[in-house]
Order: sequence, then C-alpha cells, then structure tokens
Amino acid sequence: MTWQLARRAARMNPSIIREILKVTEHGVISLAGGLPAPETFPVEAMREATQRVLRDAPHQALQYAPSEGFAPLREWVAEHLNAQGMAVDAGQVLITTGSQQGLDLVGKLLIDAGSRVAVESPTYLGALQAFNPYEPLYDALPCDDDGPLPDALVQAQGARFLYVLPNFQNPSGRCIGAARRTALVQAAQAIDLPLVEDNPYGDLWFDEAPPPPLAAQWPGGVVYLGSFSKVLAPGLRLGYVVAPSALCTKLLQAKQAADLHTPGFNQRVVHEVIRNGFLTRHVPTIRERYRAQRDAMSAALQAHMPPGCRWSVPCGGMFFWVELPAGADAVALLPRAVAKGVAYVPGAAFYARDPAANTLRLSFVTVSPEQIMQGIRALAEVLKETP
Amino acid sequence: MTWQLARRAARMNPSIIREILKVTEHGVISLAGGLPAPETFPVEAMREATQRVLRDAPHQALQYAPSEGFAPLREWVAEHLNAQGMAVDAGQVLITTGSQQGLDLVGKLLIDAGSRVAVESPTYLGALQAFNPYEPLYDALPCDDDGPLPDALVQAQGARFLYVLPNFQNPSGRCIGAARRTALVQAAQAIDLPLVEDNPYGDLWFDEAPPPPLAAQWPGGVVYLGSFSKVLAPGLRLGYVVAPSALCTKLLQAKQAADLHTPGFNQRVVHEVIRNGFLTRHVPTIRERYRAQRDAMSAALQAHMPPGCRWSVPCGGMFFWVELPAGADAVALLPRAVAKGVAYVPGAAFYARDPAANTLRLSFVTVSPEQIMQGIRALAEVLKETP
Repeated sequence: MTWQLARRAARMNPSIIREILKVTEHGVISLAGGLPAPETFPVEAMREATQRVLRDAPHQALQYAPSEGFAPLREWVAEHLNAQGMAVDAGQVLITTGSQQGLDLVGKLLIDAGSRVAVESPTYLGALQAFNPYEPLYDALPCDDDGPLPDALVQAQGARFLYVLPNFQNPSGRCIGAARRTALVQAAQAIDLPLVEDNPYGDLWFDEAPPPPLAAQWPGGVVYLGSFSKVLAPGLRLGYVVAPSALCTKLLQAKQAADLHTPGFNQRVVHEVIRNGFLTRHVPTIRERYRAQRDAMSAALQAHMPPGCRWSVPCGGMFFWVELPAGADAVALLPRAVAKGVAYVPGAAFYARDPAANTLRLSFVTVSPEQIMQGIRALAEVLKETP
Repeated sequence: MTWQLARRAARMNPSIIREILKVTEHGVISLAGGLPAPETFPVEAMREATQRVLRDAPHQALQYAPSEGFAPLREWVAEHLNAQGMAVDAGQVLITTGSQQGLDLVGKLLIDAGSRVAVESPTYLGALQAFNPYEPLYDALPCDDDGPLPDALVQAQGARFLYVLPNFQNPSGRCIGAARRTALVQAAQAIDLPLVEDNPYGDLWFDEAPPPPLAAQWPGGVVYLGSFSKVLAPGLRLGYVVAPSALCTKLLQAKQAADLHTPGFNQRVVHEVIRNGFLTRHVPTIRERYRAQRDAMSAALQAHMPPGCRWSVPCGGMFFWVELPAGADAVALLPRAVAKGVAYVPGAAFYARDPAANTLRLSFVTVSPEQIMQGIRALAEVLKETP
C-alpha cells in the first residue's frame, strides 16, 4: 500500500529540540529544554481543585462542553487581560488545547499555500511548525535587541500577518520596550498588516512588568495568544486566543473541527485553582526562582565565556540567547558539548530564513545554579578549544 | 481592518447540531444530542485516579510530555485492539485530543485541495467538519442496511481514502456484518483504496460484539480511530489513532504542530482508571442502560409512528435513524416538533452530497424511557398532522 500524502506533509518536520532532548537524557546537563521547572507546579492546589470539581460538578466536567470554552474561565481571561490594558470581552476568548493549538488555528484560518507570513528573526520554532503545514512563504524581519525594526515592516506589506512574541521571546529572551511597541503598531496600522501576538512568558518578569500588549493599542488588528503552561503547568494543555470579533466565528468553527473542545475537566480545575487570586500569590514564587537561576547563568557566562561571545541578560522568561564569534557553528559544536556533559539548542532552528549558525539558546529554569555553573563552564571549554 | 482569510475558511461551517442544541435547552425533550449519559461517567474511579496520579507522579503528569502519548496508555490501547483481532504495536498508537483530533490530523496529512475522499451516505457529520477545511471533493458511496455496497467502491478509485464507521454508525445506527466487511476490504484492496476506520461506538453493543475491525484484515491499508469518550467520559478528550507504520512519523509531526501533545494529566488519570480491567466491569453497565433505552425507543416508535416511516432497530450505539415517507422534509418539520416539545437532528446534515430530506436521527441515551415515550409520541403527532 502506497499512501499518497497531502503536499503540506512535506512541510512537516521533526522538532530538532525533541531530537536533542532524546540524546541528552543521561548524565548531561541540559540547557536545551524549554520546559518550566516542575517544582513550580501547584500540586496541592491542583489536588484540592480536582476534588472540588469532581464533587461539585462531576457530570458537567466530564461531559462534552462548548467549543468556546468554560464560560467562567473565559471571563477570568478577559479580566486578567483587561487588567493589563486590553479591552477584551469574554465572548472574544477561545480556550485552546495549549497555545500551540492557538497557533495552529490561526494558521488554518489565515494562511493559504503561498501566502506571505512575516516573522521575527529569530522566532519561536513551535510557531513555524504550526504554520508550515499551511505552506506560507516567510518574510523574516530584521530585529535588534528591542525587537523587529519598525522601518522594516513595510517589506511585509501584503503578508497575512506578522507573528511577534513581545515578552521575553523564545528564543532570544528580549522584551520589546514601550516605545518600540508603539512604533511597531503604528507601522503595522499604516500598511494594514495584522499582528499575531504570542505571550506565553509575560508573567515571568524579574524586575518590572513588561509594557502593555500590542493588542491594547490595536484591538481590531491583533490576534492575541496566551497560556497557562508557564504559570501553572503545561501538562494541562490550556491556552487561549483572543481574536477581533470579525474572526471569532470562523476561529470557533476551526476549533470545533480540530478537537470539538478543550477538555472541560481541565478548564474547570484550572478555573477552580485560579479563581480566588491564586496566581497573584503563586507567580511571584516562580519569578523569584527563575530570577535566581537567571542570575546564576549570567554570572557563569560572565565568568567563563571566551571573548567574542555576546549575550544580553534577559529581564524575564526562561532563556539566554548567545551569539558566538562570526564563523562559529553551533550545530557542529553540539556533539562536542554533549561529550563534555552539556546540551543547548543551536539557534539556527529558530530562523524562518537565513539562519545565523553562530547562535545558541540556553534555558536556565530546570537546572540548579550549581548545574548552570558547571554546564556553562563545560560549554566555555568547548568554545575555547575550537580553533 | 479587513482580515483576509484562507480559502479553506469558506469550508468551515457552524454545526447544525450545536445550533439545534442551543434552541432546545428549555423544556424540550431532546432526542437531538450526541452526548453519552452522564450517569455512566465513573466519577468515583476518576476521583481515586486523580488522587493517585497527583500523589505518585505529580511532576510528570503536569509537565510537557511526548507527542506520541503516555507509553503505558499506548500499550493498553494496543493490547485492547489486539484482543479484538488486530495486530498493533504500541509504537503505532498516537494518543489524540479526542478522536475528533484524529480526524483532523488524518485530513491534514492525506487531503489536498481537490483530492477526492469517499464517504458513506449518510456519514458522521464531525468527520465532514474535520475534513472540509482541507477542501476535498467527496464521493458519497451508496449504502444499504449493511453498510457501503462493495460494488460501488470502484467509483472511489483514486480517492485518498474511504472514511467508514463500521460499528453502530452515527447517524444510521447500522453495524456492518462480517461478510460485508470482508467484501469491502477486498474491494478496497483491489483498487488500492486506503480506509479510515472510525470506531467510537464499538464497545456499546447490546447483544453481541461486532465483527473484528476492518483494520484486522488489512493492517497496512487502514488508519483506525478509537475513543474513550463513550466508555469513560468525553470531557477528558482522549482518543487515539493507529496508523500503518508508513504514516506514523508524519502523523506524529502533524500532532506535534497541532497541540504538542494531549494533556498528560488526563492520559495518566485514564490509564490509572482502566489499567486493572475497570472497563470489563464498567462497560457492561453502560450497555445495559443503553439497551433498555433502545428498547423503550423501539417500542415507542412501533406504538406511535404513522405508516410509511421506516427504521431499523440498532444493535448498539446511541442512535435510531428514521426515514419518513418520500417527500417529507425533516428540516421543515423541526420547528413544529420543537413547538410540541421534542427535538431531533434532521438527517440532511449527515450527507456529503445529495441529502435525503426525509431522514432524521434520534438519540436514546440521555433521556429516560418515559421521556422517550413522550418525545416519540409528540414527534408522531407532528408527522400525522403534516399533510
């Protein structure tokens, strides 16, 4: 039996991160992962919430449920976002099976084969994986340490949207400042370029909250994606999309076709956990933990990295982004780093076009300060040994 | 802001069933639903399982997890299917976010715009909704009370696959007999036509288990879909796809792009519920309940329906399929039925082409025998009043 695959299947590819994680399970300090620290998962609160949901609403929690999501959770999301400067009605909130599904639905709804989609350079790998099967052509916008260059947006005129991750971007760690946000929105409005704003890390700030979302400045032109994966737990697969009203109906139909609805049990449990302000107490504990690990990695990089390497210290999120000297190849170096006991993700995977081979991503959240120090020392040795 | 949608968005549509359910919430006996009876949900077993999972493996259950699914659950699925005559390796099992996601992934992987896809006539509405955004052209195969006519398969030669629901089909309730299964598989093999076999209802038999799956006869040519929604609870959104090895890698990549993985918490809880033979005790209680309700509906139809109506008594599943006299229009009749206090789903929604307007689907599982009697009596009155 020869199966004839859809043309889009040629655009589906294995995740390089998954492949790296497979190799590095044993005895290697992995700075490659994108996983949150399991110590931050609110196990006790989850235990209580599951009991309450199964006691108070077992049949509703286990039955088929509306594709839009659990109404009180949608309302919570709207209030949470409005507190950050947005103006969201709960009717615009679609609960998704992780924000990865939000990316898939956005791609399904907005991308035709051959459509242009603008992305940052580098950008989030998972978004490329979600969009790729819809066969877009990418415009990779030039970026500096403050995000995409507003003057460059004009090259994306006519694209279906610009995908942008303003807060503590995966992979680069950078946070777009307030002035740049305004400039980006104005440049996008000037050429009628919709934005898809992805914000999985915004709550994980270490010093001060990031500026308001782009969507706050342009509600009708931005699709906004959020997630509970980094502030509660990713294994629940709970995210959300907030879309301008013009898109809500079709987005809901796409959701319904994709999986009918996100597990109602999970939605009710999470709502039960968070409805009385739990996150205002819980998230600061995650920030504190990650800040200490960020500090450890910053110190380790400063102490050990050879000259010619460049990085910025992230103000939130989970990642450092390191540029090695021009000519270095992070893919080629990886096996030697693993042999020395440390793993990272080569940065090339995060480019839609023109990968910068001399970049790599380091995660600091699932490793202890001691392991961070040890891992960075090993990485630095490899770099110093490289001609 | 004018959003330019992908062409496929034109093929996304609201679910007529959802629209009907919205109208019929208050004071109407709904025979329209496709929901299992909530009294069958194993709430106590779920309560114990969630506690054990959160006690014994909280961090694993709440962390990101492999896209393939939880290994012990994949093994359980393989064993469960092998007991029914299949020959499945756990490596072929992909856990999905409900079997609706399985349909979406199959469509994503196998359907190009303009590809032909063969379906039964009538067929499952949710499958059409999953496939539609990939823009297939449908071949609607003629069917009798024993399923698709094997001689008709040749008209589907060159189609990407034939989608077939052999056991207690939604909507028709019919179960394909053993001889017809063999004839269908042989006809499909003769023209190299892959099969997508959907089996959400197979465990809900009332008299005897259905014949072995089509996949048992042709492992290399059948993608098989299963679900925990009808034997445990749909609100967990747990299903699975078993694919021939040739498809597994690409299917996994499609899954990863769609939502990274199905909630690991749900997978572990369900595995904890079922791993010691729970379903062999639990499913017979569902069968008994549904059998009594099936009997009640059968008796009510026989007692009240006017001459010229035709139906078969289903041997399992959740639905009766009624053919009204030629010329009747179940869509036009619906508002009058709702006014009389009963709702159903007009059959036209279940046809990919050439809808039969004189058909309707009746669910018997979420209503008591008394409500069934009352609802069918009301329906019969409407039919008798119709000129």
